[in-house]
Amino acid sequence: MNVELINTGSELMLGRVLNTHQQWLCRNLADLGYTVTRQVAVADTGRDIEQAVREALSRAELVITTGGLGPTSDDLTRDLIAQLLGRTLREDAAIVQHIAQFFVTRKRAMPASTRVQALVPEGAIVLANPHGTAPGLAMEVRPNPFRGDGKPSWLIMLPGPPRELRPMFIDEVVPLIQRVMPTESAFVCRTLRTTGIGESVVQEKIEPQLQHLVGSGLDLGYCARTGQVDVRLAASGSDASRLVQEAEAIVRGELGSFIFGADDDELENVIVHLLIERKQTLALAESCSGGCIAHRITNVPGASAVLLAGLVTYSNEAKQKFLGVRAETLAEHGAVSEPVVREMAEGARQQNGADFALSVTGIAGPSGGTPVKPVGTVFIGLAKASGTIVKKNFNPYDRETFKQVTANQALELLRQKILAAS
Amino acid sequence: MNVELINTGSELMLGRVLNTHQQWLCRNLADLGYTVTRQVAVADTGRDIEQAVREALSRAELVITTGGLGPTSDDLTRDLIAQLLGRTLREDAAIVQHIAQFFVTRKRAMPASTRVQALVPEGAIVLANPHGTAPGLAMEVRPNPFRGDGKPSWLIMLPGPPRELRPMFIDEVVPLIQRVMPTESAFVCRTLRTTGIGESVVQEKIEPQLQHLVGSGLDLGYCARTGQVDVRLAASGSDASRLVQEAEAIVRGELGSFIFGADDDELENVIVHLLIERKQTLALAESCSGGCIAHRITNVPGASAVLLAGLVTYSNEAKQKFLGVRAETLAEHGAVSEPVVREMAEGARQQNGADFALSVTGIAGPSGGTPVKPVGTVFIGLAKASGTIVKKNFNPYDRETFKQVTANQALELLRQKILAAS
Repeated sequence: MNVELINTGSELMLGRVLNTHQQWLCRNLADLGYTVTRQVAVADTGRDIEQAVREALSRAELVITTGGLGPTSDDLTRDLIAQLLGRTLREDAAIVQHIAQFFVTRKRAMPASTRVQALVPEGAIVLANPHGTAPGLAMEVRPNPFRGDGKPSWLIMLPGPPRELRPMFIDEVVPLIQRVMPTESAFVCRTLRTTGIGESVVQEKIEPQLQHLVGSGLDLGYCARTGQVDVRLAASGSDASRLVQEAEAIVRGELGSFIFGADDDELENVIVHLLIERKQTLALAESCSGGCIAHRITNVPGASAVLLAGLVTYSNEAKQKFLGVRAETLAEHGAVSEPVVREMAEGARQQNGADFALSVTGIAGPSGGTPVKPVGTVFIGLAKASGTIVKKNFNPYDRETFKQVTANQALELLRQKILAAS
Repeated sequence: MNVELINTGSELMLGRVLNTHQQWLCRNLADLGYTVTRQVAVADTGRDIEQAVREALSRAELVITTGGLGPTSDDLTRDLIAQLLGRTLREDAAIVQHIAQFFVTRKRAMPASTRVQALVPEGAIVLANPHGTAPGLAMEVRPNPFRGDGKPSWLIMLPGPPRELRPMFIDEVVPLIQRVMPTESAFVCRTLRTTGIGESVVQEKIEPQLQHLVGSGLDLGYCARTGQVDVRLAASGSDASRLVQEAEAIVRGELGSFIFGADDDELENVIVHLLIERKQTLALAESCSGGCIAHRITNVPGASAVLLAGLVTYSNEAKQKFLGVRAETLAEHGAVSEPVVREMAEGARQQNGADFALSVTGIAGPSGGTPVKPVGTVFIGLAKASGTIVKKNFNPYDRETFKQVTANQALELLRQKILAAS
């Protein structure tokens, strides 16, 4: 089955906003067995939208559009599609009432322009929008004049704002497509996430072992992210679960502890859960990572059971005052050094009575480097009951990438040692 | 001029990663006067990539692809395009050497599979990749067999990883396209960023005043983000600069200090620069925001001149130990309270000798709420020479949105008070 997604919006083409609809809709559709075969973004102009819809209807059984249903002059999708398909628009009394009520609840006058959102093309199904004024619309294009074989397609129009689109998709679109175009075959997708190993080495280790499964229909993919490589295992059909499970067992056998998690796992989630299971606690002492590790750890619900404190000690004074780093150590070795990162970790562990304390000091750049300690130099310390470990790394990236890569390395060191300690 | 962008990657179609290339490339191209007219994403399969490239070449003078140049079996773009255009691939000795050196520097063996990245289609220009192994490729398709008029097109292939793609685009692609296809007309785009004011109020205030400029070709757009509203002013042609400048003056007159910055400014950049100008310092005391404010402030180059320390005091013990919050205050009012946020701010200011100290305590959720203090409750404190201010807000969002919205509110309070103090 071909499924196409059309995102409309000049702000997308000018790069003023990130298109989060693509990932969200593709992910949710794939998990239901409807893999999107093509996604297109075009500006809010009549010609571009019409051409994109025409082409999508010529290829796909299911076409979903986002945006262009609002009240302003650049909202063209509904009108253009009605015209393209030769359907007249009629005003829907229930929608007019919904819009009026929306403004009453907010104690605001209903602008006349909003009424255009109550227009519905002949034969379309209205998809309720409890979070906004513009409803979604769904219609079967039967016969489909744009397909050579004339086979029907479904066309679904969704509003642009994510907090309107997402509940509408879940509550209205999913039941509709499952009824009108049930998937014939299951789709199973599993992503295994690794860190500390390069993409080509991952491939060399696993691909020969997976050949027989690829021959049977396993789809194998790789995605290199900053400091991480994802391995994606997917399959369709009645054999899908077995294929993916067998492949996962092989990949886990080959890559072992390089795999830190699966699917949507991030290192911080894995660590918070490991520490909760073990009833252990964590303290952080960050210099160059500037709170990035604390921010990531505290994104995880339940982090308060694990994280006692995160000390972002940017200045030398703060390193001394809050972590007990000695003035002589700073004077002798400099803030970016093995002895300082060691005292930072040990100080943070002791001050907070934590099981583990992670410390980071380095040079994020763009300035502050020296020939001996260039921008990108970083020391990572981990203090624990059995002693303190220090690692020196070199991450010569832009400032934000430096912080994320350094945070990944620190979290991975912590993950390995939590596992080793138990 | 038509410009089309093709993003390849099955992980995009399965919704496993967010397509950040679209925004980044569209933004950078638009700022240079090359507005992308269509963006397409397809899976890593031969048929889909070939069809997308064929269609783009039939319409566009400039086609840019991302992804599919790496060493793994799902990297197909280079091969497919060479085949589609009937160009033979030859191994480039300089690229082989670059790849070999890449592995030498990292003290790793060079996997044989990486050598495929040195293959270059006949007549293609090699775009250096100092941050990875796969070079980019650029070629003129002349004559262009896919266009009715046979007019030539340029086809540029970029690698998938953002930290390879972005510097390559800036250093190699921009000079190339400016040389081979100079833009005829200027494009000017200015975004003014506001906070603390709703989208409809922004529109009501500025739109009547801008009508005459819209009539002369000004393109006016709005983008509501979490807690912020952007106003976009754009124009093309010889009059573009004047139109946008006049519009900016009008919008600034109407919205005044609701505007915190322009274009890519974030609150944290604005604050770091204000404090550097004034030679003033900042300390942070974060509970529920968990280091988010410290992380954002330290993303700004030069933050070390401003930020003395950020104390992420998740536990009550840490609030007492590092900030001097009194046990009685915690016992009497609870950690999420006006008196505690006040003592946090004052403690952070005093402990660090900072000019300003910002504190946050609240309930990020999903658990931890009570009928009196539901999830989303937050207190923000700001200690300064002339006294301490406390605000209570209610941000009933998911955990990550809660942290970002709370950080915005705290930073905006700080920005207003830095300005008021000078």
